[in-house]
Amino acid sequence: MPTPSTPSHPSTAPVRAALRRSAELEEQVRADPRRFRVVTGDRPTGPLHLGHLLGTLANRVRLQRDGVEVFVVIADLQVATDRDDPGDVRAAVRDVLLDNLAAGLEPGPAPGGGAVVFVHSAVPALHRLFVPLLGLVTEAELRRNPTVRAEAAAASARAGGRRAVSGLLLTYPVHQAADVLSCGGNLVPVGQDQLPHLETARLVARRFEERYGTGRPVLTAPEALLSPAPLLLGTDGRKMSKSGGNAIALRAGEDETARLLRSARTDGQRRITYEPDRRPEVANLLLTAALCSGSTPEALAEQIGDGGASRLKAVVTEAVNEHLRPLRRRRRDLERADDHLRAVLAAGAERAGAEADRTLRRVLDAMGLG
Amino acid sequence: MPTPSTPSHPSTAPVRAALRRSAELEEQVRADPRRFRVVTGDRPTGPLHLGHLLGTLANRVRLQRDGVEVFVVIADLQVATDRDDPGDVRAAVRDVLLDNLAAGLEPGPAPGGGAVVFVHSAVPALHRLFVPLLGLVTEAELRRNPTVRAEAAAASARAGGRRAVSGLLLTYPVHQAADVLSCGGNLVPVGQDQLPHLETARLVARRFEERYGTGRPVLTAPEALLSPAPLLLGTDGRKMSKSGGNAIALRAGEDETARLLRSARTDGQRRITYEPDRRPEVANLLLTAALCSGSTPEALAEQIGDGGASRLKAVVTEAVNEHLRPLRRRRRDLERADDHLRAVLAAGAERAGAEADRTLRRVLDAMGLG
Repeated sequence: MPTPSTPSHPSTAPVRAALRRSAELEEQVRADPRRFRVVTGDRPTGPLHLGHLLGTLANRVRLQRDGVEVFVVIADLQVATDRDDPGDVRAAVRDVLLDNLAAGLEPGPAPGGGAVVFVHSAVPALHRLFVPLLGLVTEAELRRNPTVRAEAAAASARAGGRRAVSGLLLTYPVHQAADVLSCGGNLVPVGQDQLPHLETARLVARRFEERYGTGRPVLTAPEALLSPAPLLLGTDGRKMSKSGGNAIALRAGEDETARLLRSARTDGQRRITYEPDRRPEVANLLLTAALCSGSTPEALAEQIGDGGASRLKAVVTEAVNEHLRPLRRRRRDLERADDHLRAVLAAGAERAGAEADRTLRRVLDAMGLG
Repeated sequence: MPTPSTPSHPSTAPVRAALRRSAELEEQVRADPRRFRVVTGDRPTGPLHLGHLLGTLANRVRLQRDGVEVFVVIADLQVATDRDDPGDVRAAVRDVLLDNLAAGLEPGPAPGGGAVVFVHSAVPALHRLFVPLLGLVTEAELRRNPTVRAEAAAASARAGGRRAVSGLLLTYPVHQAADVLSCGGNLVPVGQDQLPHLETARLVARRFEERYGTGRPVLTAPEALLSPAPLLLGTDGRKMSKSGGNAIALRAGEDETARLLRSARTDGQRRITYEPDRRPEVANLLLTAALCSGSTPEALAEQIGDGGASRLKAVVTEAVNEHLRPLRRRRRDLERADDHLRAVLAAGAERAGAEADRTLRRVLDAMGLG
């Protein structure tokens, strides 16, 4: 699938360096996938959408198929990080699990085999690890994390500008570090906005070795696998968001998808062109269709020509529904397989729990505790 | 034992209010001790000293003898809060346990019976509870906690002014709240400097009920039991500290105690008087002797008269060694009872673990998790 560049992703020097390093890592993955363990995850704040699929789900499925072990944490204890009312978390956990499996993730308990999907609250040792890791970062480092600041600003905007940063949001990067380090992950697929979180995980692992190192490494500093996938916007031209009403949920029906896309924001020009800077909403729709159909936005614009917004939306709707059809079919089948879903999470919790127990024991030993 | 007032304890309005409320609570304890559960604890950063005994240990032993259930947490995971090198934590845990038992704490598993002594790292659910509780405080509340600021300043001073505040120190009040709330404690004996920590525990309990309350209370807001015991200074006239070399360790021998007191700072005046403002070091020694012998500093000063510093130190040494003699005898006996010590901690971890598991389950249920 081609991955066109997009101007909504400004490339700073650290991002360019991360992209170069990620390309090297991709080669190493292809050469010897069993050297790597990916840890990634989702907060269960609602069903996942097309942006998640194209941005991260497809990537984790691809890595698993390449032979890399993939741990996926469904971070239920972090739902309250940026909202007071967590909503129906049990339902959201189920949605996120269904979306991951429908996207093609294949759970299996064997090392080097299938994916390990687990719920945060089912792995106690992970949260115990969080406590000593907090001792390895400074207040100033926590406060200047740009992702935390951005998430805090977004949460404030949703709440009408009055929401204070919680202790949970402030320490969120360290808790994410505990996710990755407890599972012994050495590769974390991220978007650009999550690079600072990954830096915290690396910092914590390095400081632990400096402070308590016994010669035999205890924590592995993970590396970022920066996805070159472009950022999709929502149908209103803003950031696509589970709660924004502007995202095509993976679980949505084809009619619902068509309805949402018919209401998408465009402009008045009949001639469709791919000009991301001048016509961001039209460009975003073209990009969506291109990513779903394996085409390029320029070729699709050419093809639609003078068809205007209605033709554009019809093309996007068809591309999206076509692309999601097999996923949605699998999802409907899985929805009826409650026993299977429970077994997947139970096996995941057991495997992640064993890894986290082992890591915690080594951490406490190195610190002279436990 | 008389508790003379001391000018080193400035009384602000909140402190006076806390003292009034504590007097009421003391009456309620006497009337019906089984309504209360005390949670208190020590960080295992070294053996406990005379200041701990007179300030807190004696108080917890007294409460237990009054029939109140007393939970004592040995906070091993918090040792790294304000220092990089935690030292020999296992040895320090043993020292703190020995000091508590030697002071008269009687462990026993039955509710309403003996004390529950446990090590932090042995109660996983307590640390899981910490995570959702972090979501109930704001960054600003964490940052303005005066005790955290004071402890950060002290840690910086020890490190030569270069020590940053760690994430663990910043979130320490919330972790202490998890200690108290996970055990269902409703009464926390504190010194004045710990009142802000107790306020955090109360705040967290209240916010949880506001946000997730189901009608049936899940977390109990604990009350401070402010000790009217005066603050003892170290032999150098500074704050008595485990690591300051200015404290009479409970485990010290009588000769060692005599040596430390001979080196205590005094002044050149032969006539001994109790004038805390003008002669703080002399007053502190008189207060120490008075607290240990059940006398008053004024009466002891009168008795010493023109005997000067050497007579004063002899009086203090005799009073301290006399007071500590039975405790030190018990401590020597306990030092040989390794199986007993292990059994005490195992029983404590089991009991505190069961309480914390129950609390965590109710918390996660109320939040729609787990």
